[in-house]
Amino acid sequence: MAPPSERVVRVAVLGCGNVGAALVGILGDRSGALTVQSGARLEIAGIAVVDAAAPRPSHVPRPLLTSDATGLVTDPSVDVVVELMGGLEPAGALVRAALDAGKPVVTANKALLASSEGVALRALAAERGVDLLYEAAVAGAIPLVRALRESLTGEHITRVLGIVNGTTNFILTRMAEQGAGYGDALAEAQDLGYAERDPTADVEGEDAAAKAAILAGVAFGYDVAGDDVAREGITGIRHADVEFADRFGYVIKLLAVVERAGEESLSVRVHPAMVPREHPLAGVRGAFNAVFIEGATAGELMLYGQGAGGLPTASAVVGDLIDATRNLLAGTTAPAPDRLPARLLPTQDLVTAFYLALDVVDRPGVLAAVTAAFGEHGVSIRSMEQEGRDGGARLLFVTHRAREGDVLATLADLRQLDAVGAVTGVMRIVELP
Amino acid sequence: MAPPSERVVRVAVLGCGNVGAALVGILGDRSGALTVQSGARLEIAGIAVVDAAAPRPSHVPRPLLTSDATGLVTDPSVDVVVELMGGLEPAGALVRAALDAGKPVVTANKALLASSEGVALRALAAERGVDLLYEAAVAGAIPLVRALRESLTGEHITRVLGIVNGTTNFILTRMAEQGAGYGDALAEAQDLGYAERDPTADVEGEDAAAKAAILAGVAFGYDVAGDDVAREGITGIRHADVEFADRFGYVIKLLAVVERAGEESLSVRVHPAMVPREHPLAGVRGAFNAVFIEGATAGELMLYGQGAGGLPTASAVVGDLIDATRNLLAGTTAPAPDRLPARLLPTQDLVTAFYLALDVVDRPGVLAAVTAAFGEHGVSIRSMEQEGRDGGARLLFVTHRAREGDVLATLADLRQLDAVGAVTGVMRIVELP
Repeated sequence: MAPPSERVVRVAVLGCGNVGAALVGILGDRSGALTVQSGARLEIAGIAVVDAAAPRPSHVPRPLLTSDATGLVTDPSVDVVVELMGGLEPAGALVRAALDAGKPVVTANKALLASSEGVALRALAAERGVDLLYEAAVAGAIPLVRALRESLTGEHITRVLGIVNGTTNFILTRMAEQGAGYGDALAEAQDLGYAERDPTADVEGEDAAAKAAILAGVAFGYDVAGDDVAREGITGIRHADVEFADRFGYVIKLLAVVERAGEESLSVRVHPAMVPREHPLAGVRGAFNAVFIEGATAGELMLYGQGAGGLPTASAVVGDLIDATRNLLAGTTAPAPDRLPARLLPTQDLVTAFYLALDVVDRPGVLAAVTAAFGEHGVSIRSMEQEGRDGGARLLFVTHRAREGDVLATLADLRQLDAVGAVTGVMRIVELP
Repeated sequence: MAPPSERVVRVAVLGCGNVGAALVGILGDRSGALTVQSGARLEIAGIAVVDAAAPRPSHVPRPLLTSDATGLVTDPSVDVVVELMGGLEPAGALVRAALDAGKPVVTANKALLASSEGVALRALAAERGVDLLYEAAVAGAIPLVRALRESLTGEHITRVLGIVNGTTNFILTRMAEQGAGYGDALAEAQDLGYAERDPTADVEGEDAAAKAAILAGVAFGYDVAGDDVAREGITGIRHADVEFADRFGYVIKLLAVVERAGEESLSVRVHPAMVPREHPLAGVRGAFNAVFIEGATAGELMLYGQGAGGLPTASAVVGDLIDATRNLLAGTTAPAPDRLPARLLPTQDLVTAFYLALDVVDRPGVLAAVTAAFGEHGVSIRSMEQEGRDGGARLLFVTHRAREGDVLATLADLRQLDAVGAVTGVMRIVELP
């Protein structure tokens, strides 16, 4: 076989935003090392953009820019396609065209992967025997997908807990450490460029839900779409919840959770949770991401790193690109996770401990009425605390493990009580493994 | 090609201690899944032990036990060898025989890998084009070696900081959190089975040094032997150091450090260090391990998990065994790190911040004399604190970044001063990235 320096693999880059531009930079700067690692010289065949005339960083070679993405992908001289456009279309159609032509695809597009089209694309790649690699789509630079796909391939994974959205983790860290309110912390995240002007996708948990769906595939081999993930965001978290968490040794984190629920059933969800301060996830601060994996033999593992940003994301893309190139030269593909049909556990059947906060009227007999409601639904109270507050009182409860449906039924009953003004906080609690 | 269930790969297991017995259990319990993942049925050809008549867990099939390890390794029907005996010999000769016969080897033997024979074995595997895989040798179940070898293969890694010895991390956690003295914490670790009766290899940093040497190979592509790693253990850490660390926002950890020092030079060392409380390594508690990686494009990454124990270590062995089997069937090998000759930076040329503690006589002019000694060697003081203690005083210093040789020269001068009773603490400080 020819030495690596004489073999050329031509790469089509779709999209030239932060990640695309960083990738083009790395391919230029580290070309010698990448040739050694991948077994071929990686040559950029073209960079597809919407507007080829728009201003670009100076290291992006202008002659390579094209607005004809389809022409680039179907160019017979192109060997590998890297999709960094984001969004469902035209990204989906271009990835499909590449796979159809037998060309390996590397993508960072979590929205696409978590859509029904993404599920179909994974099936297509398997059918054609072509690599579809997406390390960068979950938790950015963290080598999570490969760890799950290869190192832990023999492992019976029972649960994955992820902090997979840097924006919300930044906001929650500010609320916990600086005592900031939600609005101020969000505004700071926006000023620093961590949050979009319209932060909905982050703060409502949509981004994390897409990643949870992808994790269900990679860690458990089930096909799950982002839209099917039970989801609750962080907009309802109040200063009082943060204070309670701190006083009782917890830190509030927005978690993407994927866990086995019986033989062929899976719970996939995104919600804020109280995490014990001794848990490794509690120490994940600012815009960092981390994924905590519980396995039957490996025990507890956590992978931590930068979940976003041009360079870190591009670094994950480069790892996949090397992989795809090596596999292409060797005529093999990377092991792909199974794509089993998922049976999702309804959230009401989840069993977990809860934190609950109620505003009540401060008068005799109230506590008895409240605790009776718990008892009626079989929800057992682990600890209770009462705080006086002008005229009324706030009751804070931590329950033992209880079925979520029973806790919701308890809350519905409590809301009927005259003495209960409002349910001001409901949050699941993560227990130490 | 035959379906996976009809292909058989025969595995020789050398050693049947905790890890070996756990491996045999996993190969039995999860045989269906492992067949799918590896592409062949993994059949144990034999289990080499010193005493085939000794008692074993009931799941270990007695007919497979043999005391003829050499015969097992050279048995033509054996395809893959898993070495879990530990120690330099006969493990080294058996691994050599397997590689010589073109058989892939999976090993968890850090002592062997960090020896000069280990360096030679890595060269032999490369020469023969045979896999020599050792995920389990550093940080147990943590998928570190594969992350460095594959995901981060395109990454310019600048520094690796590892908590790679669970015993010492357990002891240091107890000293920090329960205020235990070193002796009591060690005794507790011994009672719990975390520390050996003779704890030297752990507490003097020998075990961590072997892992640092292996990390230098995997993360940076340099051949380093464990004996060449600069090493300092935890036996000299006093309660006063732990208290100072806590008061100033640090946690003391025993770190294995590998970092680039100029173009072709590397610093590889093991020593206790003060780690800022906000650093992810500071939250690694008890017997857990973690490795913090700093890369030019990926940024900061950390991988966390169980560093020892039969099942977690066996889980890493299983990942390698699947890899070796897949590669064997595909006629390829896993990418192996470079084996460049290492130029090691002498520790005196290291530049870092220091914590220093001196017992001094409490009289006028002492502080002036002490600070003059710092100034003479160009060591700049960032903060100083004085504590009175019966008749004398203790001076606690944090320096700015300084050359280690200059700090040692300063300490030598200080020891000459009549007013200085003793240098009671010297520790490097890790700065936040």
